[in-house]
Amino acid sequence: MHKSRLAGFIIDCQTDDLELAGQFWSRALGYPLRKSAAAEDAQYKLLDTPADELHIEVQRVTHPSRVHLDIEADDIEAEVKRLEKLGARRVSEVKSWVVMEAPTGQRFCVVRVQRSDFEANANTWTE
Amino acid sequence: MHKSRLAGFIIDCQTDDLELAGQFWSRALGYPLRKSAAAEDAQYKLLDTPADELHIEVQRVTHPSRVHLDIEADDIEAEVKRLEKLGARRVSEVKSWVVMEAPTGQRFCVVRVQRSDFEANANTWTE
Repeated sequence: MHKSRLAGFIIDCQTDDLELAGQFWSRALGYPLRKSAAAEDAQYKLLDTPADELHIEVQRVTHPSRVHLDIEADDIEAEVKRLEKLGARRVSEVKSWVVMEAPTGQRFCVVRVQRSDFEANANTWTE
Repeated sequence: MHKSRLAGFIIDCQTDDLELAGQFWSRALGYPLRKSAAAEDAQYKLLDTPADELHIEVQRVTHPSRVHLDIEADDIEAEVKRLEKLGARRVSEVKSWVVMEAPTGQRFCVVRVQRSDFEANANTWTE
């Protein structure tokens, strides 16, 4: 038995100017940028959404720009296997997360628990 | 003066089998599919998220699969102009909405008010 749910989405930007990318999406969507640790600054800008709502991050990437979803799980391997049974395929492992591809073609990630109300509100899967 | 905010996101699927695409995303994200009017069925499947949370739709498209964001606004033209000043460009008008492209390359849409708590919680823009 494990739990998972949609954690949020990442706005992947193929850019050398992450600051500018973060500013655009912050202003476009009306969320301030969150202050983040210096080490994260080079690759991510977090929008300041409430802790129990979907998170939104602007990420600097080298592949073409896109938007991708993150699924948070308390057992990443079990969640990957559940999604494989639904038709998704494992693409790669990066640090603590797994990149997958949906049968409909979109890439998405299975990540560790992100949001504060996960335990209370995530979906429980019994197989 | 007008208001806008992030409305939700659309999972664009290049597929002939929207039913299957909707089933995958429903099970992957753990939201049931909402019953929709027959006329909408050919192009959209709505996931059953709470009325005051971000909406999530699975859409059948002919372009490559992706995920795109929707911004809801009580004055679409004013919102498009605001976003143009931030560096986005207008791509096309489709029915009641406007397709735009962010300076970071992602396509997104400016749509009519979607969620029930818009009036109370959207961002107000004074220019």
